[in-house]
Amino acid sequence: MRQVFLRQPWVFKTDPEQLVRIFTEYGEPRKLAKGYVFHHGGEQGEVAYIQKGLAFFRFTDRFSKNRIFAVVPPGGCVGDLDVLTEQRVNVVAECARPTVALFVSGERFRKKLSNDMGLMTTYARRAIIKQEVIEEGMIANFTMPLALRLVGLLNSFVTAYYPLKPNDWNPIPVTLTTFEIANIIASTRSTISTILNEWMDKDLVRRDGRRLLCHGRLFTVDYDWDGKGVPG
Amino acid sequence: MRQVFLRQPWVFKTDPEQLVRIFTEYGEPRKLAKGYVFHHGGEQGEVAYIQKGLAFFRFTDRFSKNRIFAVVPPGGCVGDLDVLTEQRVNVVAECARPTVALFVSGERFRKKLSNDMGLMTTYARRAIIKQEVIEEGMIANFTMPLALRLVGLLNSFVTAYYPLKPNDWNPIPVTLTTFEIANIIASTRSTISTILNEWMDKDLVRRDGRRLLCHGRLFTVDYDWDGKGVPG
Repeated sequence: MRQVFLRQPWVFKTDPEQLVRIFTEYGEPRKLAKGYVFHHGGEQGEVAYIQKGLAFFRFTDRFSKNRIFAVVPPGGCVGDLDVLTEQRVNVVAECARPTVALFVSGERFRKKLSNDMGLMTTYARRAIIKQEVIEEGMIANFTMPLALRLVGLLNSFVTAYYPLKPNDWNPIPVTLTTFEIANIIASTRSTISTILNEWMDKDLVRRDGRRLLCHGRLFTVDYDWDGKGVPG
Repeated sequence: MRQVFLRQPWVFKTDPEQLVRIFTEYGEPRKLAKGYVFHHGGEQGEVAYIQKGLAFFRFTDRFSKNRIFAVVPPGGCVGDLDVLTEQRVNVVAECARPTVALFVSGERFRKKLSNDMGLMTTYARRAIIKQEVIEEGMIANFTMPLALRLVGLLNSFVTAYYPLKPNDWNPIPVTLTTFEIANIIASTRSTISTILNEWMDKDLVRRDGRRLLCHGRLFTVDYDWDGKGVPG
């Protein structure tokens, strides 16, 4: 689902190799429990590269409702966006699953960037692209009907891990709760369950244990301003 | 209104002097009619610095509805965000009023940045901050009740031009139509009129010709996660 940019919403793709090299060279590996909160932002912030597991970015709105606005699969970074502004944000980055990550200090990260114009340019470009992913999701939340948002989210999860199969079943590579899905696409868990059950009745969606599988037919309704149609 | 970042939503503040200098040094001045569309994005994109007037960023959603997501008052730039990714976006940047701007080519702009690490760092930081302004507005559109979104938008317009007066009348520095307001905060012109009329009955809002004035009392309901309260 893309209405404005050339990125699928909500789920980050892997970061460029040039940036990843900062972590493979200087990163301190750590195993993190589900629920671990990253100390990102501010002068003392850390930057982490997710090797295994999953991270969420979320905020708490005016009415204390939890909103997940970005998902970081393995190959993506946490803390890289606010490392440069060095300002506080009301954002929690946390491990959504047991996670393995490489950590570097924000100071180290900034220093590496500012010593290498090629790297800084890659960083700036990447920062803008990540914001486009985030904005495409936020735009969907106030312009797209819920069922289409859910189609878009499932598409984003599939295509973050592998190319979508239009004529076959596509396993969703991450086991998500209906509660997590509801938090991402601004809905409630009961409404999400209702939609998924309707899709199961139509054989567009199947369950294999806790894993969800979506048939490529589900994604034919997915919208793309660029006219590229289904997979992306 | 700030739920996540330290920026007021929707309305950009002035760009840093370091960046503005690219335009004062190399910019070609042009007078633009209301409705002029900037050729931003892609390899051939232009970058423009608004000296007088007003620009809007907008997109057309899946249902052909027009959505204004950012407002650029004098002192801000257009085309600087997608100049670095060099990719197309489904975004129109247009003059909302007769406008005077300084133009430089995207190529020139990129070259200036890539020759000066201090400038590139300022640019990257500024790009992230602008996205925060945009995101704060998008977040409001799916989490905040309409009346509070309208309070937030008026606050943003005031504080983009001058410090808000909590105990006095604050003229909105730009004459906005209810249609434009509705496009920004995801509503309809009739609903916006209804709310403004209610506020006029309560003497929270006045009209002076086509100009709107808001009393500081209106902004006491404005929310700020950082606890700084009204002006910002």
